[in-house]
Amino acid sequence: MITILRIGHRPERDKRITTHVALTARAFGANEILVDYPDKELEKNFESTCQRWGGDLKIRTGVKWRQVLKEFNGQVVHLTMYGETLEKAMEVIDATQDIMVIVGAEKVPREVYEQATINVGVGNQPHSEVAALGVFLYSLFEGKMPEFNDGQMKIIPNPRGKTVESK
Amino acid sequence: MITILRIGHRPERDKRITTHVALTARAFGANEILVDYPDKELEKNFESTCQRWGGDLKIRTGVKWRQVLKEFNGQVVHLTMYGETLEKAMEVIDATQDIMVIVGAEKVPREVYEQATINVGVGNQPHSEVAALGVFLYSLFEGKMPEFNDGQMKIIPNPRGKTVESK
Repeated sequence: MITILRIGHRPERDKRITTHVALTARAFGANEILVDYPDKELEKNFESTCQRWGGDLKIRTGVKWRQVLKEFNGQVVHLTMYGETLEKAMEVIDATQDIMVIVGAEKVPREVYEQATINVGVGNQPHSEVAALGVFLYSLFEGKMPEFNDGQMKIIPNPRGKTVESK
Repeated sequence: MITILRIGHRPERDKRITTHVALTARAFGANEILVDYPDKELEKNFESTCQRWGGDLKIRTGVKWRQVLKEFNGQVVHLTMYGETLEKAMEVIDATQDIMVIVGAEKVPREVYEQATINVGVGNQPHSEVAALGVFLYSLFEGKMPEFNDGQMKIIPNPRGKTVESK
């Protein structure tokens, strides 16, 4: 079970970035998405994506992240440019056990660095929490991306155009 | 030489996403970033990141993408959820030769699908062009991320806090 915990979400500024975080989480194999700020529109849009394209992921916004973190019983991975290299982190993290991945927006409180099982820097450069999450999950699952067969639509890979199967 | 061509950039809506695209391109080993819409602020911010954190990447905004594509002599990879699987694409693409990666915003004109050497769907699911770009480059370079030693600052990986070397 992989849970993504998005903290520091600012509804105006981060709206689209958090949407990208949620869709990336789904596409690369996470099971649950928690966002600290209440955002019903994000929930609705994400649930609609799952209906159309498949997957039984849960999304909850407006969660109390400190409490969530306290109650979580598993490996906590905080993605930050300052963290341990991805390579080293992969030696420590067990992909078969429960993982909570914390994806921060701008400033992340010090206690997150302290409470995480490991802080992981995907590249140790300033880039994007969206890319960091995608590459982290891709690496964690050794390049295996999930297939979704319970949606209303499904893409058939096409090197030249668009093929979509509708049910 | 890896060039990223960002098309369909709408300054208001895509401002932060295109910034994430540019930073992700840098962090995962691209050399040049071209954006179709003129955006001096994006150029300035990106150049300032390269000064602080290193790398001699070029960024140009306001490029005529049709002309750029026409004049480019190399492999053109268009990232789209409808494309060929990443696994199959990796059998076709030669990482040692010049590559132009096209990263579209909302709607991408049909001619891009037709003119690309290959259309690649990183996961064949709706997600994020930022994550798609990160995972594509990560996969292309087999997990090797570039090191930048010519910046004013450098992160020393830290499993628990922040360590930054200033020059």
